[in-house]
Amino acid sequence: MKLGVFGTGVVGQTIGSKLVALGHEVVMGAREANNPKAAEWAAKAGRGASHGTFADAAAAASELLFNCTSGAASLEVLRAATDANLRGKILVDISNPLDFSKGFPPSLFTPTGDSLAEQIQRAFPELKVVKSLNTMSAPVMVDPAGVGGGDHDVFVCGNDAAAKDRVTEILRAFGWKSVVDLGDLTAARGAEGYLLLWVRLYGATKSPMFNVKLVR
Amino acid sequence: MKLGVFGTGVVGQTIGSKLVALGHEVVMGAREANNPKAAEWAAKAGRGASHGTFADAAAAASELLFNCTSGAASLEVLRAATDANLRGKILVDISNPLDFSKGFPPSLFTPTGDSLAEQIQRAFPELKVVKSLNTMSAPVMVDPAGVGGGDHDVFVCGNDAAAKDRVTEILRAFGWKSVVDLGDLTAARGAEGYLLLWVRLYGATKSPMFNVKLVR
Repeated sequence: MKLGVFGTGVVGQTIGSKLVALGHEVVMGAREANNPKAAEWAAKAGRGASHGTFADAAAAASELLFNCTSGAASLEVLRAATDANLRGKILVDISNPLDFSKGFPPSLFTPTGDSLAEQIQRAFPELKVVKSLNTMSAPVMVDPAGVGGGDHDVFVCGNDAAAKDRVTEILRAFGWKSVVDLGDLTAARGAEGYLLLWVRLYGATKSPMFNVKLVR
Repeated sequence: MKLGVFGTGVVGQTIGSKLVALGHEVVMGAREANNPKAAEWAAKAGRGASHGTFADAAAAASELLFNCTSGAASLEVLRAATDANLRGKILVDISNPLDFSKGFPPSLFTPTGDSLAEQIQRAFPELKVVKSLNTMSAPVMVDPAGVGGGDHDVFVCGNDAAAKDRVTEILRAFGWKSVVDLGDLTAARGAEGYLLLWVRLYGATKSPMFNVKLVR
């Protein structure tokens, strides 16, 4: 399958490499077609990896796109990808609306009662936005077993049940044993709001290698 | 030890009864000295339980106060308790800044980059505010073993290390095996922000008998 990854940072590279390792063809999208980080990634990730503009990545993807850009850039990136290339596709939105303008710890730039995922969905109504993987560090996203043997949770939410099922399949391929469906996309307010706790847990654990498990 | 509990709802009654069961004397504070819910609770909770105004509860407490009021009422309740009665005491702040004005799920009424616990601390600088127990339902607060054998976490944060230690002792007496120190009181932004996820987990689990465990 051919997939698109928006973003050339740690999250984009980690997700891209995992998808390539799983046998998929991945186009990493960046603002400029000759982005050096994307080119270096594509060279290293090996067979199946290529790179181009955001529009190239969106156009190449048959079905699935991953938003691995910083939250502040996400809407602009998707506009650059163009409506025509996004239409009908699934966007796994991993971004977080983090505002670092006052330093660390960040606050959220979305007002309470909204979320970045919903802003994206409103701006691109023909995209099927599924919020997921935004609640842990990049290494944990693609190797859940690396933390506590994998006995912890990843969340999904979105308005399209079939899209959530499709993303859940990908998460299982990443190694996730427990995928908790939080409901429709308004639940992204919870998944994104949790980041305010995540940064404090990061401070307390002094390592990004952690996650939370839902205990009942 | 004599303790004060602000609030006559489920949280106040549950915390109050647990403290009484642990052998403490507890004064439940309400707006009116003859609040019928507080009177009923005091009669049921038995030896050591009494009730009065918010000022009565604050004045009676030797050291520890529990804010079990709704977040929207908390500042007014503490003003009614009076500065003189609060001075130098520890306030375990269990409240959450939940805004139900648009129905369920609630949003937060504090702006991003602030928390109710910090608002309380700023308004009452001589109070030692420790945020804790606001991240789970009342039955779980006082009986962590009732969920997954107690293998999950409660958080504390605050600006006074000795006050956090004192609250941690109380949490251990409640049965908490793992108390995670999130740092100073700005971490209440995380503990309160998590509520946005909590309400979604509640929706997903369809039961308030759950909590999260920090997995490393």
